[in-house]
Amino acid sequence: MEILKQRILSDGVELGTEILKVDSFLNHQIDIELIRQIGQEFARRFQKENITKILTIESSGIAVACATSFCLGDVPVIFAKKEKASSMTDEYYCAEVKSFTKGTISMVRVNKKFLHSEDTILIIDDFLAHGEAASGLINIVKQAGARLAGVAIVIEKEFQGGGEKIKEQGIRLESLAVVCSMQEGKIRFR
Amino acid sequence: MEILKQRILSDGVELGTEILKVDSFLNHQIDIELIRQIGQEFARRFQKENITKILTIESSGIAVACATSFCLGDVPVIFAKKEKASSMTDEYYCAEVKSFTKGTISMVRVNKKFLHSEDTILIIDDFLAHGEAASGLINIVKQAGARLAGVAIVIEKEFQGGGEKIKEQGIRLESLAVVCSMQEGKIRFR
Repeated sequence: MEILKQRILSDGVELGTEILKVDSFLNHQIDIELIRQIGQEFARRFQKENITKILTIESSGIAVACATSFCLGDVPVIFAKKEKASSMTDEYYCAEVKSFTKGTISMVRVNKKFLHSEDTILIIDDFLAHGEAASGLINIVKQAGARLAGVAIVIEKEFQGGGEKIKEQGIRLESLAVVCSMQEGKIRFR
Repeated sequence: MEILKQRILSDGVELGTEILKVDSFLNHQIDIELIRQIGQEFARRFQKENITKILTIESSGIAVACATSFCLGDVPVIFAKKEKASSMTDEYYCAEVKSFTKGTISMVRVNKKFLHSEDTILIIDDFLAHGEAASGLINIVKQAGARLAGVAIVIEKEFQGGGEKIKEQGIRLESLAVVCSMQEGKIRFR
């Protein structure tokens, strides 16, 4: 998606060779016009899949997931929870998610009431790096016995290997911008 | 907002007299059609205020904030961060937020680059209970020297006092459903 790549080049900030900071338009301040275009593009790519629900993870996937739903007939968006709250009194699908940057393992949860075996799920997230968050969500879709239409990612950092992990499971992956390296202060796309 | 009140009555679950669980349509699974209507209603109420940015807090405010922006000319949405990530290398406005349910105090942060004294800000959140999250966001708007157009809330639990705290500062508060009590398993609206 050319407009997104241009935006990454103009407003993205590389912190070393691993972290790409896009807080000015994607995951802290949200450029709503851009998010709307991203939603339209995801919807175009998955429109024939008869998606019944979109699954994402808090927080940065929520805006993109909602924008995509707006173009896919307002299907429900479910965001997996990272924290256990006192109101979580039902049964949950759980999956472990490792964070490479923080060095922690956390549990993500989705209420069992919201995913069913008849569902066709589209997983959406802002970033794909080592693939840990996506793997957790894929795991939850499998537990629910639902059909997984694919994984839709705004920015994939190809060099961190998450995309490979998903594709070798036979899962369709659609990334709008694929960064193949961030060396010497220069972002290169595939 | 009648459709919202009806939905709370049909799908909301009271956990004791303090917690109202609405995870089936607002803060875990998101009913996108309802969120769109909520966004239209917030936009209608604040359309004359020349809002330049919407400020919310992760995670449950994000969907509503985006839906409102769609109806207010795609103004940027900024969500305050609850965690400090390794990519947060700039200067931040910070405010303490107490959680009554968890008994914790956490820090919320907004990058100083995204709020300016020329901005007119609309604060949006899913719930208003004791008013701690809203107070934190109001504090951040004040630090930035921006104009605050008001606070827009989907569900206010009036009996927990947050609304009073906001209004006594002379700040405009718009809540779409105001719960005045949850006693004996019955939700009563103002």
